[in-house]
Formats: sequence, C-alpha cells, structure tokens
Amino acid sequence: MTGTEAAPGAGQVASGERVARAALTRVLEPGDEVGGAWLRSYGARGLIERLREGAELVPRVTSARQEGLRARALAARPERDLETAGAAGARFVCPGDSEWPGQLDDLGCARPVGLWVRGRASLRLWALRSVAVVGSRACTEYGAQIAARLGAGLAERGWVVVSGGAYGVDGAGHRGVLGVGGATVAVLASGVDVPYPRGHHRLLDRIAQQGLLVGELPPGDHPTAYRFIQRNRVIAALTRGTVVVEAAYRSGALVTARRAQSLGRYTIGVPGPATSALSGGVHQLLRGEAVLVTSAAEVTELVGAIGDLAPERRGPVVPRDLLGPRAARVLAALPARGAMSAADVARGAATTPDDAVGRLYELQSLGFVERHGDSWKLTRQTTQTVFSSNERE
Amino acid sequence: MTGTEAAPGAGQVASGERVARAALTRVLEPGDEVGGAWLRSYGARGLIERLREGAELVPRVTSARQEGLRARALAARPERDLETAGAAGARFVCPGDSEWPGQLDDLGCARPVGLWVRGRASLRLWALRSVAVVGSRACTEYGAQIAARLGAGLAERGWVVVSGGAYGVDGAGHRGVLGVGGATVAVLASGVDVPYPRGHHRLLDRIAQQGLLVGELPPGDHPTAYRFIQRNRVIAALTRGTVVVEAAYRSGALVTARRAQSLGRYTIGVPGPATSALSGGVHQLLRGEAVLVTSAAEVTELVGAIGDLAPERRGPVVPRDLLGPRAARVLAALPARGAMSAADVARGAATTPDDAVGRLYELQSLGFVERHGDSWKLTRQTTQTVFSSNERE
Repeated sequence: MTGTEAAPGAGQVASGERVARAALTRVLEPGDEVGGAWLRSYGARGLIERLREGAELVPRVTSARQEGLRARALAARPERDLETAGAAGARFVCPGDSEWPGQLDDLGCARPVGLWVRGRASLRLWALRSVAVVGSRACTEYGAQIAARLGAGLAERGWVVVSGGAYGVDGAGHRGVLGVGGATVAVLASGVDVPYPRGHHRLLDRIAQQGLLVGELPPGDHPTAYRFIQRNRVIAALTRGTVVVEAAYRSGALVTARRAQSLGRYTIGVPGPATSALSGGVHQLLRGEAVLVTSAAEVTELVGAIGDLAPERRGPVVPRDLLGPRAARVLAALPARGAMSAADVARGAATTPDDAVGRLYELQSLGFVERHGDSWKLTRQTTQTVFSSNERE
Repeated sequence: MTGTEAAPGAGQVASGERVARAALTRVLEPGDEVGGAWLRSYGARGLIERLREGAELVPRVTSARQEGLRARALAARPERDLETAGAAGARFVCPGDSEWPGQLDDLGCARPVGLWVRGRASLRLWALRSVAVVGSRACTEYGAQIAARLGAGLAERGWVVVSGGAYGVDGAGHRGVLGVGGATVAVLASGVDVPYPRGHHRLLDRIAQQGLLVGELPPGDHPTAYRFIQRNRVIAALTRGTVVVEAAYRSGALVTARRAQSLGRYTIGVPGPATSALSGGVHQLLRGEAVLVTSAAEVTELVGAIGDLAPERRGPVVPRDLLGPRAARVLAALPARGAMSAADVARGAATTPDDAVGRLYELQSLGFVERHGDSWKLTRQTTQTVFSSNERE
C-alpha cells in the first residue's frame, strides 16, 4: 500500500486538502490549539497559504512565532512526505476520511491535523473498541507482568490495546497482546517510519505488521519532550478508557489518565503494594475518580458498559454493505454455523493469514464475529440478521 | 482497680441495673436483636426476672429457645462474675455509665448489653478518636508490615487503634502501636480474663497494661464462630472508620468493613498487588465505596475531617471541670509552656508512668495536649482557654 492508494474504506478527503494537512503536520506542533483555531477559520489550504505568505492570522501570535511558522511552511514538502510515507507502508488519514476516528474530534482545537498510520487495519474500526494500557517506563517486574496479562486478556476479549510503544509498561502491554495474536496500536511521538525508542524497533516493526503504528509527526520527524506529552492526549481520546499500570507521582501516564478523565473516558488504575513508589501515582488516581481493577475482565466490564457498540447487546451496528471489500470477503468466508481457523478463513477469502486476522478483529469490533480460542465464528446476531433470508447451509 | 470500684469518670448506673446487665451478658448472645428489643421493653432488671420466671416475652420466640434462655438466666451468677472480673483487673461498663461509648448506640437493638473492660484508660474517651485496623489472620509479610506501619503512624498522630487481637493483621497492628508507646484497644470475642487466641496471651496482657481489652462476654467465656462475627460490629461501631489491610474474598474483616459502612463510618482499604489473593477482598471493597489509603496520614486526613472532635479545629470540647480527678491532675502537671516527658508528668501528678501515659492520650483525644516525640505539651487552645485568666508563669 502506498500513500496515494486509497485507505481502507476509501478516503473521502480531496487531494488538495490532504496535501495541505500533510504540510501542516510539519508546521504546527501536535496539540497547538491556536493552530487548531486557525485551521477552523481558514481551512487547511487557506491556512498553509496564509502561513507561507506571512498574512495576518487571528488569533494573533508574536511576529517571531509567525516567522518561525512561515519558515516551516515554506520548507514543507508534503507531496514528498506522502511519497516517503507510502514507501514505508504508511498512509495519511485526515478528518473527513472514512478511516478517521471520530472520537478525536472531542479534542476540539487540539484535534490532530491528521494521523500518519502504518499497518493494515482500519484505525477507525479498531479504535471503536479500544482501551489504553499505559504506565511507567521504569516499571517493576510486577508492573510488566500486570501489563502483559492485561494486554493478553483484553485482546482475548476482543478489545484493541492502545499504548505508546515505550519501554516498561507500554512495551509489556503491546507484547502481551501480540503473544495471543491480538490487535494493538502504538501511538508514537515520532514519524511512523522512524519508530522510537530504538531499542523497540523490532517490537514496533511487529506492531506495524500485526497492528497499527500511528502518529501526528511526518516521516523522519523525531520526538521531543513536548511531543511525548501531546501524544498522550491522542491515546486518551482514541480509547474508551485508560488503564494505568504503575506510575510514579509525576509520571506521564498520569497525564494520559487525567486527559482521559477530562474527555469523559474511563480512568482506570491497577493497584500495587502501598509501599511501592511506582504505584504511588496510580494510588493517587484511585483516591480520586479512577476505578480500581485487577483483571482484564474488570476492565471490559467497565468500558463495555457504554453499550452503544458492545456486540453482545446491540449486534452489528455497521450494515454489512458498508464493510470494505476485504472485510466483506473475510466475513463471507466464515461458515454460517461453527468455527473456523484464521488460516482457513484466509484461504477462503483469498488473502494472507495476517490480513485475515486483522479483518477478523475489525469484524469482531463491529460485532459480526467472535473469537473462540484459535478459531472464529459468526455471532448469533450476525447469523440471524445477515443470513436470515439467505441461509447458506 | 476492682469491679466494684468506680470506673474512670465514675459510673452512674445503679447497682441493680449493673448486676442485671452483667447477668444478661451470660444469657443473651452478642448481637441478639430480639433480646435487645426485650431489653428496651422491660429494662434489664425486668427482663432477667421475666427470663427466670419463664414469663411471656414480646416479640415471642419458640418455647425451646425461651427454655434455653431460662436455664441460662437461672444459672447466671452476676455478682460472682463482677467479682471475678474485678480480681482480673476488669470492670463492667453499661449504657448510662459515663464511660459508655455513645457511638455504640448506633447499633440499635444489637447494642451490647454492656462491655467488660480491662485496662486503665477510659473506653469512652479513647473511642472518640479511634480507628479500626483489621484484616486477614493468615496475612502475608506485606500485610503485617503495612498493619504495623499504620498502627504506629496512627498512634503517633494521636489516634487510638482498635482491632480484634487476632493473629495476622490484627496482631501486627496492635504491636505497631505498642512499639511507639501508643494507645490500642483489642475487642475480644471471649471473656477479657481468658484472652484468645492463646498464642497472643503475652500481647493481650501487654494491651491490658498499656491499652484496653474489651468484650461482651462475661469472665471465663469462650469464643465461637458466631461471636467472632458479632464482635466485628462492636469494632465497626466503636471507631470512626475501619481500615482493611489484606483480606481474601470471604474474610471476616470484610464483614467489619461493610458494617462500618452501614453505620456511616469510613470504610478504608490498603491496596496490594493485583495478583495477591489476600488483597482480593480489599480490592473488591475499593471498587465499591471504600477509600484507598497507603499511609496513616491519609487515614487521619480522612477520619479527622469529621472535625467535630478534631483538636486542631475546635479545641477542647470537654470542659476541664468534667475531667476525672486523675486526668485533671495529669493536666495540671503540664507546664503552661514547653514540653515535658511522660515520666516527669507522672512525678508531677503523683501517679505511675503507665497511668500518666494513659491519661495523656485521653487528654490528647480531647484536644487538651499534644505529643511531640517522647514529650507532651498543652495545645495552644488549652493554654489560651484554660490558663488565660490564671497564667502560671
């Protein structure tokens, strides 16, 4: 897949708009709310033009700052960035694209200009049924064990695990998911083609293969302390809730958790020994509004209770006709009754096993299929509604 | 001190009433609400007479049950029990006595008939500023460490620690208090002259010396499973809040915590590893209404917030004239300015160091004095209000 190829579900944003937004990811720092206000006033194309011309912008900023932005705007080469991204297997998803996760709109003027995405699955579909698992980079053995268990348990229950790809809790959570063949998203503070940290390059490559790498920064761009903090708002906004596993009092994970709370998402904490400094921040959260959990089941009980998209309650909410062609092929490959292995589904849908697994998780997030151990089957709801007038047996 | 000697603050209940209630502690099981209703209707003397005569009682019970109670009533020898208790250094405190802790009245018909008390301090005064620390008998090293730290920390902040004297968390909590020379109360499910468990006889003797042993059962009586459960309601009702340190899902400590909650006391839990079965019950509480704490400071911040008796906010609430003669002597022995060791206070008040320490804690619970390390001094409030017209320097 290249940057110019249509994203899953087909992009709807016009090429000029996409190019302008790609340019803006090189100009505006993530979470710049003044930039977000400009974007609302002038549109992406209008804003990049005004920045290049040095035209007046409202709200006003210092001339030094506007000069800095102008220099960036003039240096930006968005077509080249889109090409570089495409060569690295990444695409650029914008508000208005069908793959855009609508919940990011809750960020208001701090909404990302766009997201660079690497991986096969649809970010929008995966984010619908996702939970963040975050925590300290310098976690203890206990914290790593808990994160891995939670990751695995959430994946087994059909939830997508979002984290930051960092050392410690983040990495343990991602690995826990990958270990059971589940779906995971790493939101980076760097370009998705230069995954950070370096020591996680294998892990992040694996996530790009089996899951999704996502970030606001254009190809080749590097993280800064500020970008790490802003990255956390994307994790918080993308998911239904944020679970904090070990965090000291001033940990960045607490920023994510508090952002989740201010966005109306669930804030969730895993307790640890009262004597452990690395659980101190989590305990502080738990003395506030956060909910204590000790298992993945308790997490899904909580975040699943929103109910609007929980397949057990309402069945598929996306009509079958709106599925992308690959997902529809995978769905069609499943028998009306009984379970089938992912490998068999892949053969039936004439695709690769990796692609089939990605589609199956998408379909699960939409309530069409459920996982039973290593096999997959249609939900009862699907059998009843999709095949009621067209029984295949 | 003997059973017939006046309790601190002087008992106010007439001898006949006291003897009848002592007899009833041998007849009615702790927490018997039908018995409590009878007691309200007929009074203690009326009830014991009716039980002995086999007269009709409302609410009615089966004749077999009434026969059983009659046999117990006829066998009861309350004068002898009061004598035995007195010989063991215990007294019998009844509702209506000035030492009676009024908060037990919240138990309604399950209010104890009376309490057998061993130790020097006033149960009423100590209970005013008390917190329960309870938990599993089979606790881990972690649980024991936490309980000991909490006990010591609460004592150092002038709080009285109440527990059940059991193995595990209870014992560690009591020991933590004793280790810093603090005030602790063990509420037993047996007679206070036959402390249970046997393996804690030294610990319980030490509590009788430096603190208080309290129970509903008359001298020589033994615990039963039912009595252990009922004992928990006394711990819950006596204190401002119950802190649970390690408890498995079906632990008796959870009974105490839930009782505390239904009585409007604070329910408090110390977290532990999410993987520890012995923290499972605590985590369950923390997922409900209980408040998470990790230190004694957090406990006192919470329970002290009631404020009605917190010395920092309101100053002494018991006029100096209402203090018992010994407490008044100890108060008078303190200098108007500066601190004094307990040993010096004892000399000044012409009493033993143990007695002086007990009185100092009473005075602290009432806001008259504060502890600074190993020394004691008058609170500013006391200096201002008690000595304002009678400066001693």
